[in-house]
Amino acid sequence: MDLLENLEWRYAAKAMNGNKIPQEKIDKILEAIRLAPTSSGLQPFEVFVITNDSVKQKIKAVAWDQQVVTQCSHLLVFTAWDTYTEDRINYMFDLTNEKRGFENEGWENYRQQLLNSYPQKSDEENLNHAARQAYIAFAHAIMAAANEKVDATPMEGFDPNAVDEILGLPSKGLKSCVLLPLGYRDVSEDWLVNLEKVRKPMDKMVTIIS
Amino acid sequence: MDLLENLEWRYAAKAMNGNKIPQEKIDKILEAIRLAPTSSGLQPFEVFVITNDSVKQKIKAVAWDQQVVTQCSHLLVFTAWDTYTEDRINYMFDLTNEKRGFENEGWENYRQQLLNSYPQKSDEENLNHAARQAYIAFAHAIMAAANEKVDATPMEGFDPNAVDEILGLPSKGLKSCVLLPLGYRDVSEDWLVNLEKVRKPMDKMVTIIS
Repeated sequence: MDLLENLEWRYAAKAMNGNKIPQEKIDKILEAIRLAPTSSGLQPFEVFVITNDSVKQKIKAVAWDQQVVTQCSHLLVFTAWDTYTEDRINYMFDLTNEKRGFENEGWENYRQQLLNSYPQKSDEENLNHAARQAYIAFAHAIMAAANEKVDATPMEGFDPNAVDEILGLPSKGLKSCVLLPLGYRDVSEDWLVNLEKVRKPMDKMVTIIS
Repeated sequence: MDLLENLEWRYAAKAMNGNKIPQEKIDKILEAIRLAPTSSGLQPFEVFVITNDSVKQKIKAVAWDQQVVTQCSHLLVFTAWDTYTEDRINYMFDLTNEKRGFENEGWENYRQQLLNSYPQKSDEENLNHAARQAYIAFAHAIMAAANEKVDATPMEGFDPNAVDEILGLPSKGLKSCVLLPLGYRDVSEDWLVNLEKVRKPMDKMVTIIS
Protein backbone atom coordinates (compact mmCIF):
# COMPACT_ATOMS: atom_id res chain seq x y z
CA MET A 1 0.00 0.00 0.00
CA ASP A 2 1.07 3.53 -0.66
CA LEU A 3 2.80 5.44 2.14
CA LEU A 4 0.42 8.41 2.00
CA GLU A 5 -2.58 6.08 1.94
CA ASN A 6 -1.18 4.42 5.06
CA LEU A 7 -0.92 7.81 6.77
CA GLU A 8 -4.50 8.63 5.81
CA TRP A 9 -5.68 5.23 7.06
CA ARG A 10 -4.01 5.52 10.44
CA TYR A 11 -5.40 7.50 13.38
CA ALA A 12 -4.97 7.33 17.16
CA ALA A 13 -7.43 4.53 17.96
CA LYS A 14 -9.33 5.29 21.18
CA ALA A 15 -10.76 1.76 21.51
CA MET A 16 -9.12 -1.53 20.56
CA ASN A 17 -10.67 -4.98 20.34
CA GLY A 18 -8.03 -7.03 22.11
CA ASN A 19 -7.03 -9.07 19.05
CA LYS A 20 -3.42 -10.20 19.06
CA ILE A 21 -0.90 -8.97 16.52
CA PRO A 22 1.07 -11.77 14.79
CA GLN A 23 4.70 -11.91 15.92
CA GLU A 24 5.89 -11.41 12.35
CA LYS A 25 4.29 -7.96 12.24
CA ILE A 26 5.73 -7.01 15.64
CA ASP A 27 9.15 -8.04 14.40
CA LYS A 28 8.84 -5.76 11.38
CA ILE A 29 7.77 -2.81 13.54
CA LEU A 30 10.72 -3.38 15.89
CA GLU A 31 13.11 -3.62 12.97
CA ALA A 32 11.84 -0.28 11.64
CA ILE A 33 12.56 1.17 15.10
CA ARG A 34 16.03 -0.36 15.11
CA LEU A 35 16.84 1.09 11.69
CA ALA A 36 15.78 4.63 12.64
CA PRO A 37 18.55 7.17 12.12
CA THR A 38 19.77 8.98 15.22
CA SER A 39 22.24 11.74 16.03
CA SER A 40 25.80 10.42 15.53
CA GLY A 41 24.25 6.96 15.28
CA LEU A 42 24.14 6.66 19.07
CA GLN A 43 20.58 5.26 19.26
CA PRO A 44 20.08 6.74 22.73
CA PHE A 45 16.86 4.91 23.49
CA GLU A 46 15.38 1.55 24.45
CA VAL A 47 11.93 0.13 23.87
CA PHE A 48 9.86 -1.97 26.26
CA VAL A 49 7.37 -4.34 24.64
CA ILE A 50 4.66 -5.25 27.12
CA THR A 51 2.08 -8.00 26.70
CA ASN A 52 1.83 -8.80 30.42
CA ASP A 53 -1.69 -7.94 31.63
CA SER A 54 -0.72 -6.98 35.14
CA VAL A 55 1.98 -4.56 33.96
CA LYS A 56 -0.45 -3.07 31.44
CA GLN A 57 -2.98 -2.55 34.26
CA LYS A 58 -0.40 -0.77 36.39
CA ILE A 59 0.52 1.54 33.52
CA LYS A 60 -3.12 2.23 32.68
CA ALA A 61 -3.63 3.42 36.25
CA VAL A 62 -0.99 6.13 35.76
CA ALA A 63 -2.09 6.97 32.20
CA TRP A 64 -5.39 8.72 32.81
CA ASP A 65 -7.01 5.27 32.83
CA GLN A 66 -7.02 5.20 29.02
CA GLN A 67 -8.57 1.91 27.92
CA VAL A 68 -6.32 1.25 24.93
CA VAL A 69 -3.42 0.63 27.33
CA THR A 70 -5.05 -2.66 28.33
CA GLN A 71 -7.10 -3.29 25.16
CA CYS A 72 -4.00 -3.24 22.98
CA SER A 73 -2.11 -6.33 21.91
CA HIS A 74 1.39 -4.97 22.57
CA LEU A 75 2.16 -1.84 24.57
CA LEU A 76 5.40 -0.16 23.48
CA VAL A 77 7.12 2.18 25.92
CA PHE A 78 9.79 4.37 24.35
CA THR A 79 12.48 5.33 26.83
CA ALA A 80 15.46 7.64 26.36
CA TRP A 81 18.89 7.58 27.97
CA ASP A 82 18.79 9.76 31.08
CA THR A 83 22.13 11.17 29.95
CA TYR A 84 25.02 10.48 27.56
CA THR A 85 27.91 8.74 29.30
CA GLU A 86 31.40 7.80 28.11
CA ASP A 87 30.46 4.12 28.20
CA ARG A 88 27.37 4.62 26.10
CA ILE A 89 29.23 6.66 23.50
CA ASN A 90 32.16 4.22 23.39
CA TYR A 91 29.82 1.26 22.98
CA MET A 92 28.46 2.58 19.67
CA PHE A 93 31.86 3.64 18.33
CA ASP A 94 33.37 0.26 19.27
CA LEU A 95 30.43 -1.56 17.70
CA THR A 96 30.88 0.44 14.49
CA ASN A 97 34.59 -0.42 14.33
CA GLU A 98 33.80 -4.06 14.96
CA LYS A 99 31.08 -4.23 12.30
CA ARG A 100 33.06 -2.35 9.68
CA GLY A 101 36.26 -4.19 10.50
CA PHE A 102 38.57 -1.20 10.72
CA GLU A 103 39.46 1.90 12.71
CA ASN A 104 39.54 5.27 11.05
CA GLU A 105 41.28 8.40 12.31
CA GLY A 106 38.44 10.74 11.37
CA TRP A 107 35.95 8.51 13.12
CA GLU A 108 38.14 8.27 16.24
CA ASN A 109 38.49 12.06 16.29
CA TYR A 110 34.73 12.30 16.11
CA ARG A 111 34.45 9.90 19.07
CA GLN A 112 36.73 12.18 21.10
CA GLN A 113 34.69 15.19 20.10
CA LEU A 114 31.52 13.55 21.45
CA LEU A 115 33.31 12.32 24.59
CA ASN A 116 34.43 15.91 25.15
CA SER A 117 30.97 17.39 24.79
CA TYR A 118 27.99 15.20 25.78
CA PRO A 119 29.15 13.99 29.21
CA GLN A 120 29.92 17.58 30.21
CA LYS A 121 26.39 18.79 29.47
CA SER A 122 23.58 18.73 32.02
CA ASP A 123 21.50 15.58 32.33
CA GLU A 124 18.45 17.60 31.38
CA GLU A 125 19.99 18.84 28.15
CA ASN A 126 21.16 15.35 27.27
CA LEU A 127 17.79 13.79 28.06
CA ASN A 128 16.03 16.33 25.87
CA HIS A 129 18.40 15.51 23.04
CA ALA A 130 18.06 11.75 23.52
CA ALA A 131 14.27 12.04 23.66
CA ARG A 132 14.21 13.70 20.23
CA GLN A 133 16.05 10.71 18.83
CA ALA A 134 13.58 8.38 20.55
CA TYR A 135 10.80 10.28 18.77
CA ILE A 136 12.37 9.49 15.40
CA ALA A 137 12.16 5.80 16.27
CA PHE A 138 8.65 6.31 17.64
CA ALA A 139 7.56 7.87 14.33
CA HIS A 140 9.12 4.96 12.46
CA ALA A 141 7.05 2.58 14.59
CA ILE A 142 3.87 4.47 13.79
CA MET A 143 4.52 4.31 10.04
CA ALA A 144 5.64 0.68 10.13
CA ALA A 145 2.52 -0.27 12.09
CA ALA A 146 0.27 1.46 9.54
CA ASN A 147 2.12 -0.37 6.78
CA GLU A 148 1.13 -3.64 8.51
CA LYS A 149 -2.45 -2.44 9.02
CA VAL A 150 -1.84 -2.39 12.74
CA ASP A 151 -3.34 0.45 14.75
CA ALA A 152 -1.11 2.55 16.98
CA THR A 153 -2.15 5.19 19.50
CA PRO A 154 0.58 7.73 20.32
CA MET A 155 0.21 8.67 24.01
CA GLU A 156 2.03 11.31 26.01
CA GLY A 157 -0.75 11.42 28.61
CA PHE A 158 0.81 9.49 31.48
CA ASP A 159 2.92 10.07 34.57
CA PRO A 160 6.47 9.39 33.37
CA ASN A 161 7.93 9.03 36.85
CA ALA A 162 5.33 6.42 37.75
CA VAL A 163 5.98 4.45 34.55
CA ASP A 164 9.71 4.68 35.25
CA GLU A 165 9.12 3.08 38.64
CA ILE A 166 6.84 0.34 37.25
CA LEU A 167 9.47 -0.65 34.68
CA GLY A 168 12.49 -0.22 36.97
CA LEU A 169 13.99 2.37 34.65
CA PRO A 170 16.02 4.44 37.16
CA SER A 171 18.52 1.61 37.69
CA LYS A 172 18.88 1.26 33.91
CA GLY A 173 19.51 4.97 33.35
CA LEU A 174 16.39 5.35 31.26
CA LYS A 175 13.37 7.69 31.30
CA SER A 176 10.02 6.94 29.71
CA CYS A 177 9.06 9.39 26.93
CA VAL A 178 6.01 8.18 25.10
CA LEU A 179 3.68 5.17 24.90
CA LEU A 180 2.49 3.41 21.78
CA PRO A 181 -0.27 0.83 22.27
CA LEU A 182 -0.42 -1.42 19.20
CA GLY A 183 -3.50 -3.41 18.29
CA TYR A 184 -6.68 -3.28 16.26
CA ARG A 185 -9.33 -0.56 16.32
CA ASP A 186 -12.73 -1.42 17.78
CA VAL A 187 -14.85 0.29 15.16
CA SER A 188 -18.13 -0.04 17.07
CA GLU A 189 -16.72 1.48 20.30
CA ASP A 190 -14.38 4.20 19.06
CA TRP A 191 -15.83 7.73 18.99
CA LEU A 192 -12.90 8.94 16.88
CA VAL A 193 -12.88 6.38 14.11
CA ASN A 194 -15.35 8.14 11.80
CA LEU A 195 -14.31 11.72 12.46
CA GLU A 196 -12.39 13.59 9.78
CA LYS A 197 -8.62 13.77 10.18
CA VAL A 198 -7.67 17.42 10.66
CA ARG A 199 -4.34 18.92 9.66
CA LYS A 200 -3.15 22.45 9.00
CA PRO A 201 -3.30 23.42 5.34
CA MET A 202 0.04 23.25 3.54
CA ASP A 203 0.40 27.05 3.35
CA LYS A 204 0.23 27.31 7.16
CA MET A 205 3.00 24.73 7.52
CA VAL A 206 5.43 25.32 4.68
CA THR A 207 7.41 28.38 3.58
CA ILE A 208 9.12 28.12 0.19
CA ILE A 209 12.37 30.04 -0.31
CA SER A 210 13.23 29.75 -4.00
CA MET B 1 9.16 -1.12 -2.39
CA ASP B 2 9.05 -2.62 1.06
CA LEU B 3 9.32 -0.27 4.03
CA LEU B 4 12.22 -2.16 5.65
CA GLU B 5 14.05 -2.33 2.32
CA ASN B 6 13.65 1.45 2.07
CA LEU B 7 15.19 1.86 5.52
CA GLU B 8 18.10 -0.38 4.57
CA TRP B 9 18.57 1.55 1.31
CA ARG B 10 18.66 4.97 2.96
CA TYR B 11 21.67 6.46 4.72
CA ALA B 12 22.86 9.96 5.52
CA ALA B 13 24.43 10.90 2.18
CA LYS B 14 27.62 12.90 2.70
CA ALA B 15 27.89 13.98 -0.95
CA MET B 16 25.07 14.81 -3.36
CA ASN B 17 25.24 15.33 -7.11
CA GLY B 18 23.10 18.44 -7.48
CA ASN B 19 20.34 16.74 -9.47
CA LYS B 20 16.91 18.25 -8.95
CA ILE B 21 14.07 16.35 -7.33
CA PRO B 22 10.81 16.41 -9.33
CA GLN B 23 8.13 18.56 -7.70
CA GLU B 24 5.78 15.59 -7.50
CA LYS B 25 8.17 13.81 -5.13
CA ILE B 26 8.66 16.92 -2.99
CA ASP B 27 4.89 17.25 -2.73
CA LYS B 28 4.59 13.67 -1.45
CA ILE B 29 7.31 14.23 1.16
CA LEU B 30 5.62 17.43 2.35
CA GLU B 31 2.27 15.66 2.55
CA ALA B 32 3.83 12.92 4.72
CA ILE B 33 5.11 15.71 7.00
CA ARG B 34 1.68 17.34 7.10
CA LEU B 35 0.00 14.05 8.04
CA ALA B 36 2.40 13.33 10.92
CA PRO B 37 0.58 12.83 14.22
CA THR B 38 1.40 15.32 16.98
CA SER B 39 0.47 15.82 20.61
CA SER B 40 -3.17 16.94 20.84
CA GLY B 41 -3.01 17.43 17.07
CA LEU B 42 -1.43 20.87 17.52
CA GLN B 43 1.27 20.43 14.82
CA PRO B 44 3.60 22.83 16.64
CA PHE B 45 6.11 23.15 13.81
CA GLU B 46 6.73 24.71 10.41
CA VAL B 47 9.00 23.63 7.59
CA PHE B 48 11.12 25.85 5.34
CA VAL B 49 11.83 24.46 1.88
CA ILE B 50 14.92 26.15 0.45
CA THR B 51 16.09 25.94 -3.14
CA ASN B 52 17.62 29.43 -3.22
CA ASP B 53 21.40 29.12 -3.68
CA SER B 54 22.34 32.18 -1.72
CA VAL B 55 20.27 31.14 1.32
CA LYS B 56 21.76 27.63 1.13
CA GLN B 57 25.25 29.16 1.08
CA LYS B 58 24.50 31.23 4.18
CA ILE B 59 23.22 28.18 6.03
CA LYS B 60 26.19 26.05 4.93
CA ALA B 61 28.50 28.64 6.49
CA VAL B 62 26.87 28.08 9.90
CA ALA B 63 26.57 24.29 9.47
CA TRP B 64 30.20 23.20 9.75
CA ASP B 65 30.51 23.94 6.03
CA GLN B 66 28.91 20.58 5.18
CA GLN B 67 28.75 20.28 1.41
CA VAL B 68 25.37 18.56 1.16
CA VAL B 69 23.72 21.79 2.31
CA THR B 70 24.51 23.33 -1.08
CA GLN B 71 24.73 20.11 -3.14
CA CYS B 72 21.19 19.11 -2.25
CA SER B 73 18.18 19.83 -4.40
CA HIS B 74 15.90 21.02 -1.60
CA LEU B 75 17.02 21.94 1.90
CA LEU B 76 14.32 21.38 4.52
CA VAL B 77 14.60 23.25 7.82
CA PHE B 78 12.33 21.92 10.55
CA THR B 79 11.37 24.60 13.04
CA ALA B 80 9.34 24.30 16.24
CA TRP B 81 7.07 26.81 17.93
CA ASP B 82 9.13 28.75 20.46
CA THR B 83 6.24 28.30 22.88
CA TYR B 84 2.56 27.33 22.99
CA THR B 85 0.28 30.39 23.03
CA GLU B 86 -3.48 30.73 23.40
CA ASP B 87 -3.77 31.81 19.77
CA ARG B 88 -1.86 28.82 18.50
CA ILE B 89 -3.92 26.38 20.56
CA ASN B 90 -7.21 28.04 19.60
CA TYR B 91 -6.30 27.98 15.91
CA MET B 92 -6.11 24.18 15.84
CA PHE B 93 -9.25 23.68 17.93
CA ASP B 94 -11.19 26.15 15.76
CA LEU B 95 -9.89 24.47 12.60
CA THR B 96 -11.02 21.09 13.92
CA ASN B 97 -14.51 22.39 14.68
CA GLU B 98 -14.70 23.97 11.24
CA LYS B 99 -13.55 20.83 9.41
CA ARG B 100 -15.76 18.47 11.38
CA GLY B 101 -18.72 20.83 11.25
CA PHE B 102 -19.67 20.70 14.92
CA GLU B 103 -18.64 21.67 18.44
CA ASN B 104 -18.37 19.04 21.13
CA GLU B 105 -18.37 19.61 24.87
CA GLY B 106 -15.61 17.09 25.58
CA TRP B 107 -13.44 18.64 22.90
CA GLU B 108 -14.08 22.16 24.25
CA ASN B 109 -13.20 20.99 27.76
CA TYR B 110 -9.98 19.59 26.36
CA ARG B 111 -9.25 22.95 24.71
CA GLN B 112 -9.63 24.66 28.10
CA GLN B 113 -7.38 22.08 29.71
CA LEU B 114 -4.62 22.87 27.20
CA LEU B 115 -5.20 26.63 27.49
CA ASN B 116 -4.83 26.24 31.26
CA SER B 117 -1.55 24.33 31.05
CA TYR B 118 0.73 25.04 28.06
CA PRO B 119 0.80 28.86 28.15
CA GLN B 120 1.67 28.71 31.86
CA LYS B 121 4.74 26.55 31.31
CA SER B 122 8.19 27.97 30.59
CA ASP B 123 9.13 28.69 26.99
CA GLU B 124 11.96 26.21 27.31
CA GLU B 125 9.68 23.38 28.41
CA ASN B 126 7.23 24.19 25.63
CA LEU B 127 9.96 24.38 22.99
CA ASN B 128 11.33 21.01 24.06
CA HIS B 129 7.87 19.54 23.76
CA ALA B 130 7.20 21.15 20.38
CA ALA B 131 10.59 20.01 19.08
CA ARG B 132 9.71 16.37 19.82
CA GLN B 133 6.63 16.76 17.66
CA ALA B 134 8.75 18.32 14.92
CA TYR B 135 10.96 15.24 15.07
CA ILE B 136 7.97 13.00 14.36
CA ALA B 137 7.37 15.00 11.17
CA PHE B 138 11.10 14.95 10.42
CA ALA B 139 11.12 11.14 10.68
CA HIS B 140 8.10 10.99 8.38
CA ALA B 141 10.03 13.05 5.84
CA ILE B 142 13.02 10.70 6.01
CA MET B 143 10.84 7.64 5.38
CA ALA B 144 8.80 9.34 2.66
CA ALA B 145 11.99 10.44 0.90
CA ALA B 146 13.38 6.89 0.98
CA ASN B 147 10.07 5.67 -0.42
CA GLU B 148 10.61 8.03 -3.38
CA LYS B 149 14.27 6.97 -3.73
CA VAL B 150 15.32 10.42 -2.65
CA ASP B 151 18.32 10.74 -0.36
CA ALA B 152 17.99 12.66 2.87
CA THR B 153 20.75 13.66 5.29
CA PRO B 154 19.55 14.34 8.85
CA MET B 155 21.69 17.17 10.28
CA GLU B 156 21.80 18.57 13.78
CA GLY B 157 25.29 19.99 13.24
CA PHE B 158 24.56 23.68 12.78
CA ASP B 159 24.24 26.86 14.80
CA PRO B 160 20.50 27.12 15.44
CA ASN B 161 20.59 30.79 16.44
CA ALA B 162 22.39 31.68 13.22
CA VAL B 163 19.89 29.74 11.10
CA ASP B 164 17.06 31.44 13.00
CA GLU B 165 18.50 34.81 12.02
CA ILE B 166 19.01 33.83 8.37
CA LEU B 167 15.38 32.72 8.07
CA GLY B 168 13.90 35.52 10.18
CA LEU B 169 12.45 33.02 12.62
CA PRO B 170 12.40 35.16 15.81
CA SER B 171 9.61 37.39 14.47
CA LYS B 172 7.62 34.28 13.53
CA GLY B 173 7.98 32.69 16.99
CA LEU B 174 9.90 29.71 15.59
CA LYS B 175 13.21 28.02 16.40
CA SER B 176 15.19 25.83 14.01
CA CYS B 177 15.58 22.24 15.22
CA VAL B 178 17.05 20.09 12.50
CA LEU B 179 18.03 20.24 8.82
CA LEU B 180 17.19 17.73 6.12
CA PRO B 181 18.95 18.21 2.79
CA LEU B 182 17.10 16.23 0.09
CA GLY B 183 18.76 15.18 -3.14
CA TYR B 184 20.65 12.35 -4.77
CA ARG B 185 23.77 10.63 -3.47
CA ASP B 186 27.02 11.19 -5.36
CA VAL B 187 28.27 7.63 -5.27
CA SER B 188 31.76 8.43 -6.53
CA GLU B 189 32.39 11.18 -3.95
CA ASP B 190 30.71 9.84 -0.82
CA TRP B 191 33.00 8.09 1.71
CA LEU B 192 29.99 6.72 3.57
CA VAL B 193 28.02 5.17 0.72
CA ASN B 194 29.68 1.75 0.80
CA LEU B 195 30.19 1.40 4.54
CA GLU B 196 28.02 -1.03 6.45
CA LYS B 197 25.02 0.41 8.27
CA VAL B 198 25.55 -0.14 12.01
CA ARG B 199 22.74 -0.51 14.52
CA LYS B 200 22.52 -1.96 18.02
CA PRO B 201 21.42 -5.59 18.05
CA MET B 202 17.77 -6.09 18.95
CA ASP B 203 18.57 -7.47 22.42
CA LYS B 204 20.36 -4.23 23.36
CA MET B 205 17.37 -2.18 22.31
CA VAL B 206 14.28 -4.13 23.29
CA THR B 207 13.06 -5.56 26.59
CA ILE B 208 10.11 -7.96 26.38
CA ILE B 209 7.73 -8.05 29.34
CA SER B 210 5.37 -10.96 28.71
